[in-house]
Amino acid sequence: MNHLSPHDVMAVFLALAALLASAKFAGELVKKLNQPSVLGEIIAGILLGPTVLGHYRPEIQGFLFPQSGPVALVLDGIISISVVFFLLTAGIEIDLASIFRQGKAALLVSVFGMVIPFALGLLSAAAFPNLLGADNGADRLVFALFIGTALSISALPVVARILMDLGLHRTEMGTVVMSSAMFDDLAGWILFGLVLGIMNPNANTGHGVRHTVVLVLGFATLMLTVGRWLIHKILPFIQAHTTWPGGVLGFIFALTLASAAFAEYAGIHAVFGAFITGAAVGESAHLRKRTSEHIHQIVTNVFAPLFFASIGLHTNFITNFEPRLTAVILAIACVGKVLGAGWGARLGGMETRTAVGVGLAMNARGAMEMILGILALQAGLIHEPMFVALVIMALVTSLISAPAIRLLIRRKKSTSLKEVVTSPLFFNNLVSDTKNGVLQEMCAKAASLVGNAPERCFRLVTERERVSNSGWRFGVAVPYARVDGLLRPLVAIGKTNKGVDFGSRDGRPARLIVLILTPDVESQQELLADAGQLFSQKETVDRTLAANTFVELIAALNAPVK
Amino acid sequence: MNHLSPHDVMAVFLALAALLASAKFAGELVKKLNQPSVLGEIIAGILLGPTVLGHYRPEIQGFLFPQSGPVALVLDGIISISVVFFLLTAGIEIDLASIFRQGKAALLVSVFGMVIPFALGLLSAAAFPNLLGADNGADRLVFALFIGTALSISALPVVARILMDLGLHRTEMGTVVMSSAMFDDLAGWILFGLVLGIMNPNANTGHGVRHTVVLVLGFATLMLTVGRWLIHKILPFIQAHTTWPGGVLGFIFALTLASAAFAEYAGIHAVFGAFITGAAVGESAHLRKRTSEHIHQIVTNVFAPLFFASIGLHTNFITNFEPRLTAVILAIACVGKVLGAGWGARLGGMETRTAVGVGLAMNARGAMEMILGILALQAGLIHEPMFVALVIMALVTSLISAPAIRLLIRRKKSTSLKEVVTSPLFFNNLVSDTKNGVLQEMCAKAASLVGNAPERCFRLVTERERVSNSGWRFGVAVPYARVDGLLRPLVAIGKTNKGVDFGSRDGRPARLIVLILTPDVESQQELLADAGQLFSQKETVDRTLAANTFVELIAALNAPVK
Repeated sequence: MNHLSPHDVMAVFLALAALLASAKFAGELVKKLNQPSVLGEIIAGILLGPTVLGHYRPEIQGFLFPQSGPVALVLDGIISISVVFFLLTAGIEIDLASIFRQGKAALLVSVFGMVIPFALGLLSAAAFPNLLGADNGADRLVFALFIGTALSISALPVVARILMDLGLHRTEMGTVVMSSAMFDDLAGWILFGLVLGIMNPNANTGHGVRHTVVLVLGFATLMLTVGRWLIHKILPFIQAHTTWPGGVLGFIFALTLASAAFAEYAGIHAVFGAFITGAAVGESAHLRKRTSEHIHQIVTNVFAPLFFASIGLHTNFITNFEPRLTAVILAIACVGKVLGAGWGARLGGMETRTAVGVGLAMNARGAMEMILGILALQAGLIHEPMFVALVIMALVTSLISAPAIRLLIRRKKSTSLKEVVTSPLFFNNLVSDTKNGVLQEMCAKAASLVGNAPERCFRLVTERERVSNSGWRFGVAVPYARVDGLLRPLVAIGKTNKGVDFGSRDGRPARLIVLILTPDVESQQELLADAGQLFSQKETVDRTLAANTFVELIAALNAPVK
Repeated sequence: MNHLSPHDVMAVFLALAALLASAKFAGELVKKLNQPSVLGEIIAGILLGPTVLGHYRPEIQGFLFPQSGPVALVLDGIISISVVFFLLTAGIEIDLASIFRQGKAALLVSVFGMVIPFALGLLSAAAFPNLLGADNGADRLVFALFIGTALSISALPVVARILMDLGLHRTEMGTVVMSSAMFDDLAGWILFGLVLGIMNPNANTGHGVRHTVVLVLGFATLMLTVGRWLIHKILPFIQAHTTWPGGVLGFIFALTLASAAFAEYAGIHAVFGAFITGAAVGESAHLRKRTSEHIHQIVTNVFAPLFFASIGLHTNFITNFEPRLTAVILAIACVGKVLGAGWGARLGGMETRTAVGVGLAMNARGAMEMILGILALQAGLIHEPMFVALVIMALVTSLISAPAIRLLIRRKKSTSLKEVVTSPLFFNNLVSDTKNGVLQEMCAKAASLVGNAPERCFRLVTERERVSNSGWRFGVAVPYARVDGLLRPLVAIGKTNKGVDFGSRDGRPARLIVLILTPDVESQQELLADAGQLFSQKETVDRTLAANTFVELIAALNAPVK
């Protein structure tokens, strides 16, 4: 094999380390501001790309991310694999069954939410190609189809995230939006495959557009029917006869890589094959949660950030930023989607306020517009300012979605233990060794912190305790009470080596005591539910008991239940 | 960026899919024969490489794995990343603390098991360089150092696997071997770094060998002391303030990529940086099992097979196979290691039979010899027949280790439910709805299968049942009995929708009944322990209850507890 020189190998690893580290850092930072982490990941790429680093220190930028040569080729290959893996997980999240059994409202939202922005984009692009950033010499029909597609796709992962953050994912609105977004995602990818096929003269098969269209539709149809059925039959066989989960993981990744190769052969992009394969695999009830969890965690946290950060490397986001073009694209995108999806929801029988919420939720765009943009840029269909405008449109629609819905429907984020507990209320070693002693000790500190009467807190907690014991499994006790006059919930967490009897059903004394004092029923329920989820896992209990500092305590509580 | 053409992208994905699919398939196949899966993965690569596919269908082989051009470069880059990730997990498995606190026996095994094969290899290579496959024009000292190193390293993952399979990992012999293998692995990698530094004139720093040696030792020392301490301090902070496990995963991978870049800069191979980083990260008690499990599963099942299969692509394993050379290398390797480690164990106070067992276990070689071989081949230090001999030596020593120890110490693999249960003894829907009825139904079928008296089985099971109830949690019941005269253990698994009272502590009726009949106490204990582990997880119980065919049943039982 042709080998990379040690210098090239170093450059590749350095570039990947720089991309991943800055993407993760910026991603977590914007998450603290309640924004989707993809925003930070893209900003990190813009900082490392021609826009900032290339402007101030072009020699460093050129060394890390060269424009040509072996390092550029290898990085391009790795980014291609990253985005293929990312689309695999996106596909796994699609729930085909829920698409097929969706009701009238969801069907109308799907169709209207897709057709109206598509038509609006198509017509605007056909009427004003130059205003909308067509490259000179671009095929007008292809360009119009591209704009229509780029504006009609919702970003399922972003939409799901927003609904979950707002606590809306189990509501009627949430399920309608989710299954519509899934439908749009699936239909959008197939449409995208077709546009790509028309866009690129096929170098692999040497056949024309019609051939590509047949391959795309044929592959999607076969994979989602026969392929899905076959996978469902094969998975138990693999799980029975191979190491678990190694055999299944190998099967899924090999199938994804093969489908990606086929999609490239068919004249469209590899990601299409990966997405459809993911949708077919994720559908099988035999795919275990732990298996898909391994894929999901490594891909979303290592490969996806590499891809998103690489978007910023493509062009200069400042010199190529054209405010008017960006504003036009953004306006058409928002109007088409909110109007289309909202109208569908209204026709489906939802009240106006909810229907607008549906439109706003469906309005979030994401990775797909960007992938489409990259490919269109490479194919010479759009110029760089249009690419920048598309990326900004995808980001802005994702950003405004959650605050807009919040404003409309007024939901707040649910409270969790780790957000409420404060450093003074962490008792690393409780002094008392009786139930009443422990409760008195914790109530005294908690009440004094907010200027409340300790005696009253203690009385309320012990009164509640008489109704039912607060001892849980694994040596955890969760006493709680409603205390009128508190301005915010209080959580105190105490550890004791001695073990205090809180009357748990398994008879074990409590070594971890979590005291929850709230002004209202709602936050009480949320905090109790959070404690219930956290401490149903022995590992979390052990970690919490092992925490000796407040930071270690928060780390222990920061474990999502899967 | 310089872009891959659609045709190249297709070729890359196709090559990766072919490598991964054949590697996993062959790996699982040899595992069925109780051999390490790496053997199958390498064989798959040999089949796809110049040896077989290249011999019979050179045009296909040349298309899939070209020798030059963009596809070759990108594949080389992806394989480099795969082996870096693989060494990260190998490093995470190193338990530095256990190395530092190891006793006299382990210390002697480590030192003798390293020094004697090293000296034997060094001296043989210095005395007979041509016999041992030095390339013409190779530096004699470097060549001798290389052979010494290549023969002195044990393969920790292979050793760990063999001990576990033989059920020896918790014995004194097992712990001595494990901590010695860890020590040898760590010392071997540092030695390997030094040999590499001497082998390659450093293109990156422009400095000499001394500079490389200082960088290697300095990096290893700093990373394993200050670095390790820093990581231990930073992890809780990351876990407290970022999404879990995303933040930690991003941190570990970014650090690994940066260390890999540094190792290349220092003039040695990227894998060295990854391994040392893994050792430092894996040491922190704050690294949660679920986090390292995600890394471990994806890397060992997707990236490691890609690397191992790629070994077979390097050369023709038939035309370059020289029996005499291979036999000499194999003999020196085995004599040096078994003698050295065995002698150390004997001096450390172990009896002769156990000492030989220690020597045999330490004799297993693996990935490192192969990586070393690839680099030596590329550096023009050894010729292709020697590379083939090294790969075969690594494989053969791994293969003979387990059978040899088994012969010496006579241990058998422990029995598990999924191996014992047979299709006729799967009752998808039990007829009876009382405890006695169910037991009678299952005993009748089980006993009749082996020509035993059903009445007697039933009596033995119900007698045992009177001693203590066999109802477990989650609606599982595990009745069992010892039945003299059985030739092998019998396991029957029955499902019932009605729920039968087996007196479980949580009061829930049993819907899954696992009947265990054994001729001896040992297999009874092993099967009960296996059932205990499996059915302590609600997920496994649910999967088993959902199984409608025998294959689905085995799939459900094939879930290792983590």
